[in-house]
Amino acid sequence: MTYEPRHMKWWGWGNEDAQFNAQAHPGFWPYAKTVLTIEREDFSPREWKLDAIELPDRCIDDRFLTRLRSFLNATQINDDCKERVIHAYGKGFRDLFRLRHGIGGGAPDLVVYPESERDVCLTLRAAAERDVVVIPFGGGSNISGCLERMEPARMTVSLDMRRMRKVLQVDRASCTARMEAGIFGPDLEQQLSAQGVTLGHFPDSFLHSTLGGWIATRSAGMQSDKYGKIEDMVLALRMVTPEGVLATRAVPKSSNGIDVNHLCIGSEGTLGVIAEATMRVHLKPETRLVKSYLFREFEAGIEAIHECMRQEIPPAMVRFNDPAKTALSLAFRPPSSAYSDAVSSIFKKYLRVKGFELPQACLMLTAYEGSTSAVTRQLREVQAIYRRYGAVSMGATAGKSFEVTKYDFPYIRDFLLDRDVTTDVSETSTVWSNILPLYNETMAVLRSSIAESGVQPWAGCHISHTYQSGASVYFTFGLRQRPGREIEQYLHVKRAAQQSFMDHGATLSHHHAVGTEHLPWLADEISPLGVQAVAAIKNGLDPGNILNPGRLMPSSDPFRDWMSGDWMNMHRPAQGPRVATRSSA
Amino acid sequence: MTYEPRHMKWWGWGNEDAQFNAQAHPGFWPYAKTVLTIEREDFSPREWKLDAIELPDRCIDDRFLTRLRSFLNATQINDDCKERVIHAYGKGFRDLFRLRHGIGGGAPDLVVYPESERDVCLTLRAAAERDVVVIPFGGGSNISGCLERMEPARMTVSLDMRRMRKVLQVDRASCTARMEAGIFGPDLEQQLSAQGVTLGHFPDSFLHSTLGGWIATRSAGMQSDKYGKIEDMVLALRMVTPEGVLATRAVPKSSNGIDVNHLCIGSEGTLGVIAEATMRVHLKPETRLVKSYLFREFEAGIEAIHECMRQEIPPAMVRFNDPAKTALSLAFRPPSSAYSDAVSSIFKKYLRVKGFELPQACLMLTAYEGSTSAVTRQLREVQAIYRRYGAVSMGATAGKSFEVTKYDFPYIRDFLLDRDVTTDVSETSTVWSNILPLYNETMAVLRSSIAESGVQPWAGCHISHTYQSGASVYFTFGLRQRPGREIEQYLHVKRAAQQSFMDHGATLSHHHAVGTEHLPWLADEISPLGVQAVAAIKNGLDPGNILNPGRLMPSSDPFRDWMSGDWMNMHRPAQGPRVATRSSA
Repeated sequence: MTYEPRHMKWWGWGNEDAQFNAQAHPGFWPYAKTVLTIEREDFSPREWKLDAIELPDRCIDDRFLTRLRSFLNATQINDDCKERVIHAYGKGFRDLFRLRHGIGGGAPDLVVYPESERDVCLTLRAAAERDVVVIPFGGGSNISGCLERMEPARMTVSLDMRRMRKVLQVDRASCTARMEAGIFGPDLEQQLSAQGVTLGHFPDSFLHSTLGGWIATRSAGMQSDKYGKIEDMVLALRMVTPEGVLATRAVPKSSNGIDVNHLCIGSEGTLGVIAEATMRVHLKPETRLVKSYLFREFEAGIEAIHECMRQEIPPAMVRFNDPAKTALSLAFRPPSSAYSDAVSSIFKKYLRVKGFELPQACLMLTAYEGSTSAVTRQLREVQAIYRRYGAVSMGATAGKSFEVTKYDFPYIRDFLLDRDVTTDVSETSTVWSNILPLYNETMAVLRSSIAESGVQPWAGCHISHTYQSGASVYFTFGLRQRPGREIEQYLHVKRAAQQSFMDHGATLSHHHAVGTEHLPWLADEISPLGVQAVAAIKNGLDPGNILNPGRLMPSSDPFRDWMSGDWMNMHRPAQGPRVATRSSA
Repeated sequence: MTYEPRHMKWWGWGNEDAQFNAQAHPGFWPYAKTVLTIEREDFSPREWKLDAIELPDRCIDDRFLTRLRSFLNATQINDDCKERVIHAYGKGFRDLFRLRHGIGGGAPDLVVYPESERDVCLTLRAAAERDVVVIPFGGGSNISGCLERMEPARMTVSLDMRRMRKVLQVDRASCTARMEAGIFGPDLEQQLSAQGVTLGHFPDSFLHSTLGGWIATRSAGMQSDKYGKIEDMVLALRMVTPEGVLATRAVPKSSNGIDVNHLCIGSEGTLGVIAEATMRVHLKPETRLVKSYLFREFEAGIEAIHECMRQEIPPAMVRFNDPAKTALSLAFRPPSSAYSDAVSSIFKKYLRVKGFELPQACLMLTAYEGSTSAVTRQLREVQAIYRRYGAVSMGATAGKSFEVTKYDFPYIRDFLLDRDVTTDVSETSTVWSNILPLYNETMAVLRSSIAESGVQPWAGCHISHTYQSGASVYFTFGLRQRPGREIEQYLHVKRAAQQSFMDHGATLSHHHAVGTEHLPWLADEISPLGVQAVAAIKNGLDPGNILNPGRLMPSSDPFRDWMSGDWMNMHRPAQGPRVATRSSA
């Protein structure tokens, strides 16, 4: 097995040769400049220097290392600087901002690449004996702070799972698949596809994340409306802990006491390393359609989505943008595409006749999957409901554009970071009756908290991942950075958004995990006794606290920790960003 | 609040005035006699004497009792013999057999009826301080041994939740309902129905079980195919533990770390008392249809069910009987009903023309729920598939008969116990590809293990509760008792069935809980480390082990405990069953 999935670039999203192509989206930067009131134009391309990053002093336990070498080969143990930097963080705003400013405090001392469950078992056993911290690492796409080293004084290993990437068994008749947990999205779908099935899990991070990572963080794919969240797909798993392997049976449903699958799901690397899972899969759908619609206003679209749910015909995917996100989507369109043409000229006139005020219009993207006859019928029924709520069909073009670019959104943040703009997201879920109140409150809070740092706010929202009782509500925000106050600005806004979720009956995250970013709200979310229960499991399975310490366990003053930590020291280096400016080409 | 649901009779199922009506099912006893080779006819009606039951010596902690009296009123504390006997066990075979033989060793010292979460909190706090055991009690319908006292030396309280029976809040728009956990099925549905919604959870025990009991045991209702198992319906809950209240938020889905709802669901009373839950509910369906079909053989029907699942059109309920259970169902039919008429004469001839061998024929019951148009369409599509697999429609009559009698099956066991026949069930779930192998193996094992005690075996099976990846497989068995060896016979058969599940990749129970009956297989099921994880949670939330001790924690030699215990001493009383024979009326 020589091929293994590439690492993402350490200073941003995606492979090193991939980035946001501003020429392909000519309307985007003018839109951003306008809404964020950016006047500068002199942003030079930056070249990131790995050796500018200050890494923590290596903390190496020789006996541990000797032990590792007794059962791992040389390619499985890596301590070079680039490896350490790549494994230092996930891809949250704080993560990228710190690395771009030379702060590598989250980096492990060593990266280990297990190739089998046995490798994982032996590594954990050795680590437990020598009090070495182990942080499980999938694709490194997490944006909630699940991956960085929290204890500089303890030797820390990043356990990179990407070599455990086999589909072990597909039971096509039962639609189940047993797979190693380090498998990446594309690899997984390719291997399943060869057997005529699909997992149906396509998170935004699909290209750069793993099955084990999805399970450990309770990920949601774009088509969760049809296929469920990842926790709904797990039939059985094997999780390696310092105390041994927790293994369950691949059965559809059980009454076997407390469902121990759910102790592993969402454990965020704190209890063990998910080595393998047996997942529900689906016969590949005969047909997939993506359709888009425009609604006069946000409320009507939400009602239409809800009505489809009531009638038990929810599309496989729903992504419904509020006016701000709709404007962003339109600005993002490729040059002179059929889509952009449609929205311009004749179509605009048509919309005006229909009573649409474009600044209020909201774009709905939907996908349908299944047999051709079922999809045709569902499309007809859904569209009838949408029309009843005043929607106008945009045809398939916006949908096709979405299909092509759906994994590209994270690149925008890098592009904007290069232009001193902070963007991030906070997402949640709530019941139907609370969606609009929560939306209004949180949008107001986002705008005012950004404005409080003296810059023009931009905030938008989309509804997605619908359920019988409610949906996910996903906020995106952007703001011009005040030099030297970037993290302070970010924390102020992020805290306001999360607090709004808590104050208005929502959850701290629908699918981005707790990590460090949402930790201060965990006791509010699951009650102090819920935290105590999680701590009890931790004590039982990882008594030495070697696995991803600091997660799922809020300290006595979690906001102090949240506001401090090495991210507040990012200006230790004298000159701001540790980059060399390339002479512009 | 004066009304509260009545207790079931202590010697059997249902209210004291309800029992199996042999006249209404004239074919049943002749069928049973034939298949079990029973020659006796001289079974006299029995009258069960409460005072014949040997109860454990009362173990009362006066300081605990004084404390209870400080916050509970006189009606909330009860220690009379009948109350103790009613709360001694659930309704498993061993339970009924022991009480009918005067063995009341499972009885608590005291029954407490909390009326609020505060009552529960204060009771648990007092119990923890005084090392008093608390066994949460819903309707007492459990058949897996979840309810009996395991430690005679510790004062034991049965905490009967039936007074906590309010629907607290219905959010009709979001289809959620917050309810106290002691509410019984009929009360719950009546209160929800007044607001136009239904929980959609109708287990066989519906009339005699509670929301909290369903959650604590991971119950499944007949329509789980459409509405899910109870664990799929819980949005949030409040569980009172000796350490405080664990409370979660009512959101559709979350990524908040380990899902602590799932620590409470299935905890079988070992961690805390579920006081309240917010559940997904559904708008009441416009239409409900029940239809029945006859298949030529078992395999074809299973294929047909699976094909409906593949095409994403599973009926809301499926109950598909193998030949033995089909014969039992036909024997169970009311006298000269349209159903029985249909199966006789002309219809029989028709079936013969169609190539049906009646001893091989298999009866399928299905229900459809939803909008009239959706139900009509689904029925058409399902029937087309069934026909393709050779099914013949039986029309609505068998279905109507099922609707009327669906909660009556448990009464049969009492009727047969009165006639020295042991019946019980073992049920499991497995993936589609394993259903037939598991069925064949387990049927063979059931028959041979019964035959080994020298009596004629009867075993039957039905498939129900279907999922994308598989279904529940539910075995029923019956055998003539060998006097003095009844429990030995039962244990031999029960063990063989459960071991077959383990040996053939199934689960220890799909919806009947672990209790004591399935405890020896728990470590096989969830791995020793899974058991260790559950023990860790227990240590964290109930460090004094006051809550339902002995459950979910297999001892070092679980089979020894399973085979021994006071059930093996049932013949201490000299004369066999402690009953007075009524002079026949």
